[in-house]
Amino acid sequence: MRPIVTLLTDFGTIDGFVGAMKGVILSRAPEAQIIDLTHEIPPHDVRAGAWALREAASTFPRGTIHVAVIDPGVGTARRALLLGCDGHLFLGPDNGVLSYVASRGSQGWVLDRDGLFCSRVSSTFHGRDVFASVAGHLAAGMEPKSCGSPTQHWVTLEQPIASQQGRTVRGQVVHIDRFGNLVTNISENLLRSSTSWTVVLANTNIGPIRSTFADGEPGEWVSYMGSSGALEIAVCKGNASASGGIIDTEVVLCKD
Amino acid sequence: MRPIVTLLTDFGTIDGFVGAMKGVILSRAPEAQIIDLTHEIPPHDVRAGAWALREAASTFPRGTIHVAVIDPGVGTARRALLLGCDGHLFLGPDNGVLSYVASRGSQGWVLDRDGLFCSRVSSTFHGRDVFASVAGHLAAGMEPKSCGSPTQHWVTLEQPIASQQGRTVRGQVVHIDRFGNLVTNISENLLRSSTSWTVVLANTNIGPIRSTFADGEPGEWVSYMGSSGALEIAVCKGNASASGGIIDTEVVLCKD
Amino acid sequence: MRPIVTLLTDFGTIDGFVGAMKGVILSRAPEAQIIDLTHEIPPHDVRAGAWALREAASTFPRGTIHVAVIDPGVGTARRALLLGCDGHLFLGPDNGVLSYVASRGSQGWVLDRDGLFCSRVSSTFHGRDVFASVAGHLAAGMEPKSCGSPTQHWVTLEQPIASQQGRTVRGQVVHIDRFGNLVTNISENLLRSSTSWTVVLANTNIGPIRSTFADGEPGEWVSYMGSSGALEIAVCKGNASASGGIIDTEVVLCKD
Repeated sequence: MRPIVTLLTDFGTIDGFVGAMKGVILSRAPEAQIIDLTHEIPPHDVRAGAWALREAASTFPRGTIHVAVIDPGVGTARRALLLGCDGHLFLGPDNGVLSYVASRGSQGWVLDRDGLFCSRVSSTFHGRDVFASVAGHLAAGMEPKSCGSPTQHWVTLEQPIASQQGRTVRGQVVHIDRFGNLVTNISENLLRSSTSWTVVLANTNIGPIRSTFADGEPGEWVSYMGSSGALEIAVCKGNASASGGIIDTEVVLCKD
Repeated sequence: MRPIVTLLTDFGTIDGFVGAMKGVILSRAPEAQIIDLTHEIPPHDVRAGAWALREAASTFPRGTIHVAVIDPGVGTARRALLLGCDGHLFLGPDNGVLSYVASRGSQGWVLDRDGLFCSRVSSTFHGRDVFASVAGHLAAGMEPKSCGSPTQHWVTLEQPIASQQGRTVRGQVVHIDRFGNLVTNISENLLRSSTSWTVVLANTNIGPIRSTFADGEPGEWVSYMGSSGALEIAVCKGNASASGGIIDTEVVLCKD
Repeated sequence: MRPIVTLLTDFGTIDGFVGAMKGVILSRAPEAQIIDLTHEIPPHDVRAGAWALREAASTFPRGTIHVAVIDPGVGTARRALLLGCDGHLFLGPDNGVLSYVASRGSQGWVLDRDGLFCSRVSSTFHGRDVFASVAGHLAAGMEPKSCGSPTQHWVTLEQPIASQQGRTVRGQVVHIDRFGNLVTNISENLLRSSTSWTVVLANTNIGPIRSTFADGEPGEWVSYMGSSGALEIAVCKGNASASGGIIDTEVVLCKD
């Protein structure tokens, strides 16, 4: 089977940056299948990158190599990391971008073998010179443990956690997608105990949970269980973000 | 030969949505070659999606599997469709997005075999849970007829048709491309009978048909036979859309 | 080994243009691995395309076929070109877009064998009808010399060259990347003779060269050796282009 290498960056697609990474990977593993996850993470937004990586990576087959480069600290002392999680490999800077995919049993290595990097490592483009290069070696069959020194600690992004108290669940908007829909941290599991909730976003009463974002009148606020298994809030045929929804806004659910 | 799967959506590339679809396909058919057609169809613009799909798909080899997800009605009662047309397979919601590629001999199936979907089907992301999943099974060798129940009816988008009467041809602007060029529904066939026409867009006399969009002075309105075999109208080294050209504008050609 | 074909255009990803090129290539060479370099070169900006092509192509393995279509003169008398440079093949219009990758030993051919093009060549989309078609034939094993007539001359873009005189190096901003960083034509080689320079952009004294763009206070102008081996100028955690940096701005370095 051909090795699969996915790429997720904030490099955009205007320059040749992403192309250069692909060339480095294919130079080391010509049979690799390279898959673009996204290159449009907002520049330097580590949290958005961590989010998108978790959403996309989980659907790939075991053995996939994921490269995630949101790297505002490139060229500084931040470490370069390889994680093995649930049969997938993840490469990226140690700034939290890999932390949403890491789980209890994850294994970690610090990329400290210069011989696996491009022959000249720039101070500004480790996506090409470090991460793509090591990804190419992994795709060509190298063992993770040959890529660096083991580590058991890495930077972890805080994730606000929804909580239930009595007849009330409190959570937050934790992501806004391209349609302007607000994704919360209130998962299906939390809501299992009842089928009837009233949703309040900041001061707006959104009413009961619907079956989907299309389940309302145009312009109406609606909430529904989203594709990542968490409650989402949208404006039917509109854009909830443009209508004032922002990250970290409190979302409260009350049992009827 | 490795199976080819193309993707066309309005998901954009900011989120991990498209990446998640690719992972589902590769989980079922690791050897599939995945080709991005575009993910920048304007959100919910079924007509623009249908247009782009027809333009791109026709150049692919027989046996290609095309997945087209412009799906404002996801989670509602709209059907999920598989069409076989001219040796290609097309997957998408039954809202017209597949209707420009369908032809007289096309075969259709409704995707009603839950066992071929992702184990948990969300109400908002059938691109991943239904269409990518079935595309993966098809790429792995499953027969179309095993994917659902036959159907002979599907939603068809109306396409305005150009007409000729005497020395006059009347048509419309039916698409605007990324350069701002206006694509009409006036095909080469309609114009074959004469070599000399005068083109009028709304109230602007554009003069005779040129050989290409570069065949004029900068800023000048020009018309020419476009790459899809239909008359196009552009502003030389400019942007006809920004200069006032819009969808559905009438275009009239008069024989000299 | 599967042939690798890279694509670089100004077609954007809103329309089906790029998808149509991919289909033509795969119709001729179904095993080809198609790699997007970028489709977001500013429309008709040949120089930006030439720059991105050079940055990305050099990392690919020998034998790669690169297709670069920034083609404002499509349909006019400009020639279609195939170049062989350093073991890579390059296809594109003869307007300079290939000139940054060409070197002294490069071989050239004019694409003048109609039989290798799509059966109907439009006047506006040679990316599909000429360049993708020939790329497909090359990927399927055709020899470059079978694709056209040899030529030793092609359009070359002028590149301003940095110069040193005594204790002063003078260069220009020659590219602006997606982060708004200013890339100059002052290469590491020019600066080797000294380790201490003061950098001046137009009338702004930027001080000594830092190790990376993150090496400064937020909002501060910094300079550093960039990933392409040339001096770059940035605003730390900001956007130098938005702060007034433009193409062709003079950059002067003085030895302390």
